[in-house]
Amino acid sequence: MVRVAACQVRIDIDAPDDTRAAVVRAVERASAAGAELVVVPELALTGYVFADAAEARARAEQTDGAQIRLLRDLSGDCHVVLVAGWCEKSTGERPYNSAVVMDRGVLAGRYRKTHLWGRETEVFAAGDQAPPVLNTSLGRVTPLVCYDLEFPEVVRKAALGGADLIAAPSNWPRMPVPIGERPVDVIKAQAAAAVNRVAVVVADRCGSERGQDWMGASLVCGPDGYLLAGPAAGEETVLLADIDLAESRDKRLGPYNDALADRRPHLYQA
Amino acid sequence: MVRVAACQVRIDIDAPDDTRAAVVRAVERASAAGAELVVVPELALTGYVFADAAEARARAEQTDGAQIRLLRDLSGDCHVVLVAGWCEKSTGERPYNSAVVMDRGVLAGRYRKTHLWGRETEVFAAGDQAPPVLNTSLGRVTPLVCYDLEFPEVVRKAALGGADLIAAPSNWPRMPVPIGERPVDVIKAQAAAAVNRVAVVVADRCGSERGQDWMGASLVCGPDGYLLAGPAAGEETVLLADIDLAESRDKRLGPYNDALADRRPHLYQA
Repeated sequence: MVRVAACQVRIDIDAPDDTRAAVVRAVERASAAGAELVVVPELALTGYVFADAAEARARAEQTDGAQIRLLRDLSGDCHVVLVAGWCEKSTGERPYNSAVVMDRGVLAGRYRKTHLWGRETEVFAAGDQAPPVLNTSLGRVTPLVCYDLEFPEVVRKAALGGADLIAAPSNWPRMPVPIGERPVDVIKAQAAAAVNRVAVVVADRCGSERGQDWMGASLVCGPDGYLLAGPAAGEETVLLADIDLAESRDKRLGPYNDALADRRPHLYQA
Repeated sequence: MVRVAACQVRIDIDAPDDTRAAVVRAVERASAAGAELVVVPELALTGYVFADAAEARARAEQTDGAQIRLLRDLSGDCHVVLVAGWCEKSTGERPYNSAVVMDRGVLAGRYRKTHLWGRETEVFAAGDQAPPVLNTSLGRVTPLVCYDLEFPEVVRKAALGGADLIAAPSNWPRMPVPIGERPVDVIKAQAAAAVNRVAVVVADRCGSERGQDWMGASLVCGPDGYLLAGPAAGEETVLLADIDLAESRDKRLGPYNDALADRRPHLYQA
């Protein structure tokens, strides 16, 4: 069993010191509660609502920058696999909206968001590679970022590649939700888990930033599609759950079926 | 607006007359309530729990058989588009688990289930064609059958092909559901709607048959992924909802995004 944590923190682009402190505090709290794999939100250390590409570029860093050093050291000090959103400097005008996976003080891999949401196309460059399946000391982890999770093709490819757990640093904008329903983002995350028999962890943010309110609906979902923790209700919180990642390697659905082997790829071509 | 109905009926393979009467009564009730598009369960007129291929073969019919005539006449008499599960004779030993779409008395198209569940492989032959997108007098309807809906590739292909509404005659076996959760089948159906911005109607069955209990969780889901009716709670019922099928042709997600155009197919290849 692996204890995983989704750290839902209040991030403010205009209060970088407070934001950094909140992220560190949340990861330390998760670790103190026994978490071995910890996910924090998209763009966790910088905030999200950049005025333009120039402002994002000014906050972006490469892997030798202070953001990455902080995350690496934090994962080492807490002895956790840490998945975090991060603003990555590019060679062009617009940086990447990236995620990094730190495995107990060592960079295990990174990923650049490939599906950009809203005004992100004005601020960020889109990545050109599918999310990787990274071997970590706890299992095979695929990082992706927020809107990527809404494309079944992305999660399917990760599952076919052997991912045990999808870690999705996210910033879910607050949207109206009908009474009696969970946010549709949550439903999509649960279905992504269930149709692939893979664990899914979403670390969302809460509060508001430059007039944008956030959902704060972090979750931990088992490979059967049912929630093990969450959805959070908009507050700062550290969700914890124990997941048997071996279950993600068992794709059986009852005695006769298999979520991946039952696919009929030649029927899916356009 | 189109008024759609999901007819959740009690089907019993060992009581064919009662079953046929229940299906007819449910469709008539839906029509009397103003429904223009009506979905009934998988294998609605025969039942599901066949002992073996020979028993299924004995109940199977071609399109000139009594089952199809009944469905065609019913759709004509009620002036509805009727989507129904149906046991289709094949040239081999095992029949098909099919769905038929009747458009006000005229056969609009049919589909043979391509993803077989449980012991179905012993009883049925799998179809070899993806679900069609059928032009009906109400809009573009894609029939699929039960387990097919759990493959995001299937629904994606239908959406890319222009489907306005997915009609899924189903027989969902009863499974344990954690407290506070909807059945994962329901979650998958909602996500299928949301990620494709397409309406989804599932007509499930209720009761039990030869020792198999059924979920009875029929639903009508809008293209935003939120339920317009259901999930039903295991009883005989006719769910009704009004759907604007034009919404299924608008794939925008807010002012900057589009559920289909934002795909990056070259990243999804294995």
